[in-house]
Amino acid sequence: MQSTTYTAAALAERFGLSLRGDGDAVVESVATLAGAGPRQLSFLSNPRYRSQLADSTAGVVVVRGEDAGGLERTLLVARDPYVAFAKIAALFDPVPAANPGVHPSAVVDGSAVVDPGAEIGPLACVGARSRIGPGAIVGPGCVIGEDCTIGAGSRLVARVTLVRRVRLGERVLVHPGAVLGADGFGLAMDAGRWIKVPQQGGVVVGDDCEIGANTTIDRGAIEDTVLGEDVRLDNQIQIAHNVRIGAHTAMAGCVAVAGSTTIGRYCLIGGAAGIVGHISICDRVTITAMALVTASIDAPGEYSSGTPLMDNRSWRRSAARFRQLDALARQVQALGKEKT
Amino acid sequence: MQSTTYTAAALAERFGLSLRGDGDAVVESVATLAGAGPRQLSFLSNPRYRSQLADSTAGVVVVRGEDAGGLERTLLVARDPYVAFAKIAALFDPVPAANPGVHPSAVVDGSAVVDPGAEIGPLACVGARSRIGPGAIVGPGCVIGEDCTIGAGSRLVARVTLVRRVRLGERVLVHPGAVLGADGFGLAMDAGRWIKVPQQGGVVVGDDCEIGANTTIDRGAIEDTVLGEDVRLDNQIQIAHNVRIGAHTAMAGCVAVAGSTTIGRYCLIGGAAGIVGHISICDRVTITAMALVTASIDAPGEYSSGTPLMDNRSWRRSAARFRQLDALARQVQALGKEKT
Amino acid sequence: MQSTTYTAAALAERFGLSLRGDGDAVVESVATLAGAGPRQLSFLSNPRYRSQLADSTAGVVVVRGEDAGGLERTLLVARDPYVAFAKIAALFDPVPAANPGVHPSAVVDGSAVVDPGAEIGPLACVGARSRIGPGAIVGPGCVIGEDCTIGAGSRLVARVTLVRRVRLGERVLVHPGAVLGADGFGLAMDAGRWIKVPQQGGVVVGDDCEIGANTTIDRGAIEDTVLGEDVRLDNQIQIAHNVRIGAHTAMAGCVAVAGSTTIGRYCLIGGAAGIVGHISICDRVTITAMALVTASIDAPGEYSSGTPLMDNRSWRRSAARFRQLDALARQVQALGKEKT
Repeated sequence: MQSTTYTAAALAERFGLSLRGDGDAVVESVATLAGAGPRQLSFLSNPRYRSQLADSTAGVVVVRGEDAGGLERTLLVARDPYVAFAKIAALFDPVPAANPGVHPSAVVDGSAVVDPGAEIGPLACVGARSRIGPGAIVGPGCVIGEDCTIGAGSRLVARVTLVRRVRLGERVLVHPGAVLGADGFGLAMDAGRWIKVPQQGGVVVGDDCEIGANTTIDRGAIEDTVLGEDVRLDNQIQIAHNVRIGAHTAMAGCVAVAGSTTIGRYCLIGGAAGIVGHISICDRVTITAMALVTASIDAPGEYSSGTPLMDNRSWRRSAARFRQLDALARQVQALGKEKT
Repeated sequence: MQSTTYTAAALAERFGLSLRGDGDAVVESVATLAGAGPRQLSFLSNPRYRSQLADSTAGVVVVRGEDAGGLERTLLVARDPYVAFAKIAALFDPVPAANPGVHPSAVVDGSAVVDPGAEIGPLACVGARSRIGPGAIVGPGCVIGEDCTIGAGSRLVARVTLVRRVRLGERVLVHPGAVLGADGFGLAMDAGRWIKVPQQGGVVVGDDCEIGANTTIDRGAIEDTVLGEDVRLDNQIQIAHNVRIGAHTAMAGCVAVAGSTTIGRYCLIGGAAGIVGHISICDRVTITAMALVTASIDAPGEYSSGTPLMDNRSWRRSAARFRQLDALARQVQALGKEKT
Repeated sequence: MQSTTYTAAALAERFGLSLRGDGDAVVESVATLAGAGPRQLSFLSNPRYRSQLADSTAGVVVVRGEDAGGLERTLLVARDPYVAFAKIAALFDPVPAANPGVHPSAVVDGSAVVDPGAEIGPLACVGARSRIGPGAIVGPGCVIGEDCTIGAGSRLVARVTLVRRVRLGERVLVHPGAVLGADGFGLAMDAGRWIKVPQQGGVVVGDDCEIGANTTIDRGAIEDTVLGEDVRLDNQIQIAHNVRIGAHTAMAGCVAVAGSTTIGRYCLIGGAAGIVGHISICDRVTITAMALVTASIDAPGEYSSGTPLMDNRSWRRSAARFRQLDALARQVQALGKEKT
């Protein structure tokens, strides 16, 4: 569908890269080193793929300065080839612009305010008192409940639900199946039965956030659940009520964060990690995959829990010994004492 | 939107609390201790917030008797302030009542029976032979398949799917994205290919249950998957076919329960815990976050697995030693014997 | 709803089983051993249920030859009773056939091609340039985006989303809430802010695959995310961009697979297991529930990680000792040396 092409020289100038080789080389799309042909651009960022560079038939390759030496081919030299590649690739995959108007199959409440520059897709639903900003896209099958706000240029791809009192900033991207603003899980036990604690807060999502497919972000019990700007959440993440996530933090798929926890800025949370409720994690903390955070963290750095993968028979032996670990340690203490 | 107000004295009487201070104090909404103003009510339940009580400008505070001493302010004294708060907060956040009728954009099969007091929202779909009870709400974008029953006063908030043979009791609340009654994961390997085992059971959900956003509950292979009354499931929980969950059990987000397992009454399952299939867990068992239950449990109590969070360098050392744990234990045994 | 019945003799002949007892015994449905009546068929596969066989009032039971001895009842003897049962049960629960045509409430783009033998259900949406094959069913509330292909006889049960460039083979079954083809989670940090790496690949799903409820499969960054034929994914699984899964591999619920990982054929991945990115797992690997795979696996077999479930007090002691494990091992080494 794309027919726009760029020369290597034009790309170098547009993104401030230094060109080596044939500035007239034409790029019509991007590809992997292994898959690229002469009219495609590729990149080398991860050193493990360096061996592919020699064999690649890519017309243009984005590389670091130290990887450029001795290569007889057209190169764009970048400080960070992955960043440069991302920007170049975006030329060939433009973000869809809103096609303004309300699809006739959509159902919009009379009290909702839809900007004339917004797009409400087929079979979408917009509830009472909600406001859709200019250039925003509410894709097919989305349900926007009551008292929500969608900022300018935000995009709900398809089948997203904003339940109640959800306020999205500008340029927020939400993938299908995500549910924002459902009731937080607030319960109190009263005479042997659960009673529900009303969830009167909302969800506030900062500018430039991205929310993955089937991710859930509950609204707050009293105050709001809050994501700072440029927070990036992958698929199937669960953010409980009253969690606060600092700007530029990114979480891989399937992370679970329990209620009222605060996470700092520039944190990286690995896939399927768990974070318990009512704790605080400072800025620039990295949590590795499937680790469980059970207490506050006040120093930047990388944290882990769990045990390494083993063949099942060996693992059974180690696991059985784990049960006896306290007794084993006491035995060693005793041996140490007896010796002296 | 709410304009109803209550005096402290009226709340005391309504909920059987004992009043101290100004019975005429007017409450128009609820708030946190830190955020409440003079026309708001707050509560103190978790002792860690006691220090906020002195500074709070809340007009009325719900407290335990032992926290009430020496305070010159309007108090409602409760045995369980959180329960009392939940009941008071509900006055300001009433459960939406059904707005009876079928939205013109909804699609209802001719053989379905919708009670005249039920509400079928925009762009919802009700399949063959399904029955929607009085006061029930099927929210926007829900899909109800064949042979389902929704009891009186139940509410499917939005975009919920009941696939087939799902029977909800009364006052059941289901949040967006939940899928009840999909095929259980039944497979048999036949000559190198999987064949599907038909899933002919249903899902039965008791009265007063709550099912979180994007939670999935599969229907049974032959008999039903069953939730007792007042079971509370948070978001993104997976309940496999033929699981049975006892009344009043609550599960935090992202729990996974494998097929044919039975869980007792009044259990508390921590976030992202896993429970394998074909086991039985007795009443009043607590499982901590991210623990894995691999065998039946027949004594009430609290159970855990996993390792504590550590800085990544220290963790690598411990993890490497975990691999050698059996050898280490044998070495200690040998040292103990040699010594004697 | 089903009224077809079969005699034991007819079933024996149809599926190549050997009959003992009354060939005229009529079967009108299937049931568990404990629940079956005289006009129902049941099976014994798992030896733990053998004791139920004597008491069962089932009219016909499918058993292995070694379990058939000395039983005065009607039996169908099979090499694999579970496989035979699955095939028999399917007679009583036929796969729904497409009811060809486009429901008037569905929205189909003018450039989409819907085979006349395909069914597009109520409130479904089919996007630009997508193609729906003969006998395919797009159930209620599904959203098919741009440039997707659905092969002959495939079925999207309800509320499935195919975002962009998703190509399903034949006879693929996708359960509600699944999202295929959302953007992979590709980010690059540029001057303190995340920039999005365009995701230009697609998703390719082989023939006879099954995708569970609320499972997510992202499309590739440059090349495609690929599932071989007969791959079976349970609910709430997350498959990141550019993952490749070999034919006949099955995954239980809540598994997470990170980007660019390759998984072999005939693997069995236990519930809530995690697999990190950029690794390779060979054929016929079994991963137990909640294990984390952090490096490539090149030998078939069963692999595990984690610690066993313990009562919380004992677990706290073991967990504390895990932190000290390296020091403990060094102490044992020292004791060993001193002794000599």
